[in-house]
Amino acid sequence: MKQWRPEEYSKLYRDSLLENVIPFWEKHSPDWTNGGYYTCLDRQGNVYDTDKFLWLQGRQAWMFSLLYQQVEPREDWLAMAKLGISFLSNYGRDHNGDFYFSLTKEGAPLVQPYNIFSDCFAAMAFGKYGLVSGEKVYTDQAVGIFQRILERQANPKGKYNKAFPGTRPLKNFALPMILSNLCLELESLLPSEMVEKTLDDCIREVMVNFLDPETLLMFENRTLENEFSDTFEGRLLNPGHAIEAMWFMMDIAKRRGDQQLADRAVEIMLKQLERGWDKEYGGVFYFLDSKGHPPQQLEWDQKLWWVHLETLVALAKGYEHTGNPECMAWFEKVHNYAWGKFYDPKNGEWFGYLNRKGEVLLDLKGGKWKGCFHVPRALFQVWKSLEKGLR
Amino acid sequence: MKQWRPEEYSKLYRDSLLENVIPFWEKHSPDWTNGGYYTCLDRQGNVYDTDKFLWLQGRQAWMFSLLYQQVEPREDWLAMAKLGISFLSNYGRDHNGDFYFSLTKEGAPLVQPYNIFSDCFAAMAFGKYGLVSGEKVYTDQAVGIFQRILERQANPKGKYNKAFPGTRPLKNFALPMILSNLCLELESLLPSEMVEKTLDDCIREVMVNFLDPETLLMFENRTLENEFSDTFEGRLLNPGHAIEAMWFMMDIAKRRGDQQLADRAVEIMLKQLERGWDKEYGGVFYFLDSKGHPPQQLEWDQKLWWVHLETLVALAKGYEHTGNPECMAWFEKVHNYAWGKFYDPKNGEWFGYLNRKGEVLLDLKGGKWKGCFHVPRALFQVWKSLEKGLR
Repeated sequence: MKQWRPEEYSKLYRDSLLENVIPFWEKHSPDWTNGGYYTCLDRQGNVYDTDKFLWLQGRQAWMFSLLYQQVEPREDWLAMAKLGISFLSNYGRDHNGDFYFSLTKEGAPLVQPYNIFSDCFAAMAFGKYGLVSGEKVYTDQAVGIFQRILERQANPKGKYNKAFPGTRPLKNFALPMILSNLCLELESLLPSEMVEKTLDDCIREVMVNFLDPETLLMFENRTLENEFSDTFEGRLLNPGHAIEAMWFMMDIAKRRGDQQLADRAVEIMLKQLERGWDKEYGGVFYFLDSKGHPPQQLEWDQKLWWVHLETLVALAKGYEHTGNPECMAWFEKVHNYAWGKFYDPKNGEWFGYLNRKGEVLLDLKGGKWKGCFHVPRALFQVWKSLEKGLR
Repeated sequence: MKQWRPEEYSKLYRDSLLENVIPFWEKHSPDWTNGGYYTCLDRQGNVYDTDKFLWLQGRQAWMFSLLYQQVEPREDWLAMAKLGISFLSNYGRDHNGDFYFSLTKEGAPLVQPYNIFSDCFAAMAFGKYGLVSGEKVYTDQAVGIFQRILERQANPKGKYNKAFPGTRPLKNFALPMILSNLCLELESLLPSEMVEKTLDDCIREVMVNFLDPETLLMFENRTLENEFSDTFEGRLLNPGHAIEAMWFMMDIAKRRGDQQLADRAVEIMLKQLERGWDKEYGGVFYFLDSKGHPPQQLEWDQKLWWVHLETLVALAKGYEHTGNPECMAWFEKVHNYAWGKFYDPKNGEWFGYLNRKGEVLLDLKGGKWKGCFHVPRALFQVWKSLEKGLR
């Protein structure tokens, strides 16, 4: 696997999406009895647990809606999307309209709405599904959920927030990062002032407030004054998160025709990758402490599927938007690592969790956090970004 | 390291406690300025973070009170205990009297009282310190905290509980397990009916309700009817937890003169050890799924200091109480693993976190969860259990 041309990568990613990954989820995940999807799938695709996690229900419904919209209007893909949309719609929300974190297979609530990203991925799903199906009830719901997310932004965990108020207020990178993607996803449904204001806010948060201008490292948590906090939370780096955010920024740059923003996103993305890359064993670390202290996360040195897939997307888009040859060189390196370690040639789809040395730690294809999302979305994005070939 | 006599082990554990481990914490942890202890200590003992976690404040104050009571009434040990007691007493509790999870170094609350084990270890500390110092205010507080723990038992997380009520009510092993130790700790301070009732309840929970009678495996979570739940939580095994609970049971058996209980605890302990032992790389796994499915815990295959130290205590006590030669054979095996991998001959004390292969994953000596507790308590317990030599 080397010295391929961009369009050869593009073809591999397209073929793998349509012939390997999507068929895996079509075959193993739908729950035609209760609605929704099973995501706890073992190496072969067998269901080993039936709980339904709302992040993954929303993400899979979005994914099949995207395929219908962007690849081919196949009725079975629309039906697959609808399966998750109906389940979310029937069982997903509490009396406030907030989304639970998980449900039983039949849809009874298991874990309370403590996690606003359930709502983010539900909005993403309803928006895309509503657009492709033409069912206005779902686009309306998407807008309503989006507005409620903006309202909850200051305290997204609500009463489940365990931080004592006032002692050490910190803000977290994840929500502005996800909003920068969600806002573009829902763009056609939202008032344009709301879109522009949200994008402006996201760009400022992501590209300025969470960034250390000296090192160009992106931090997971900052003080309310956008300063470094010398605490476990404040020192935390999550290179995969930061790299994923950079391709969201490239998408905004493209939408706005802002080449400066694209160039800056590529520069920052490459910095996270240099810092996050494990020079001894290859792969990108999950968590690091910016001062080199021991992080609290025991899984800090593990290699996770989504980190590597989002890195491939960011590199492909970086190449597409800037032609920077470093992007293509890094793409080749990360591609070889990821396809050599995560991809399962025997049973299809990708492993999710490797140890530091790149050995499989858990051989599941799906679980509480891994579903039909990062693998197919990244395959789709790389396919499209590299389709046009050499720049 | 092999074919030692029990009293030789005993001497090693005693010497290591008094000449290596306790001096490490005496030198590096006290915060004489603000009170309390620093526990985030790097390999050399340098403070790398100043937050104070209440589990560890209570546990260290208890540890030094125990040394004063059981080893030697040294004034500096009492002062060290008092340092944590005053800090807990001044800053530890919210307006309900519940203990925060963490504080800044100055004592400002950081994380709310969502975790009842902060209260358990505070009660343990106040009780022991009150007894050895003769300051009745602390023994009174210990009794009050203990009563409040019993009141909160049905919903220990209070409003921070994220489980939706009623869908899948499960009970967790940790609280009855910890109560079985705490109740003996506070025995002399509590009404005897309360002690006997609490011990009876704990024995029933631990030895019957959380145990699968076929396999003798101890489960972390059971239904309210004491049944297996075929869910992530219900399938979860934590061999270190179960093994530690078995030495708590042996202590109760000794206190009650109940040889049958001691024998049963040894039998169950050995089963967890056989199941939990990593036959490929040695050491005891952190988490397992009882059906062999992928656990949710990414750290499942790591080797943790406390698991191995509590196993050594359980084996030493098992040998002391039953003379079972399997206990001594296992002791030797676990001893060789633990002293070869966790003990740090260069800088003293023990590493906390190894990867599956036994390589150091984080070289800290203390952090959010590791303080002055499992290492010194286990060294003390093994010293005392094996002191009398061969049975």
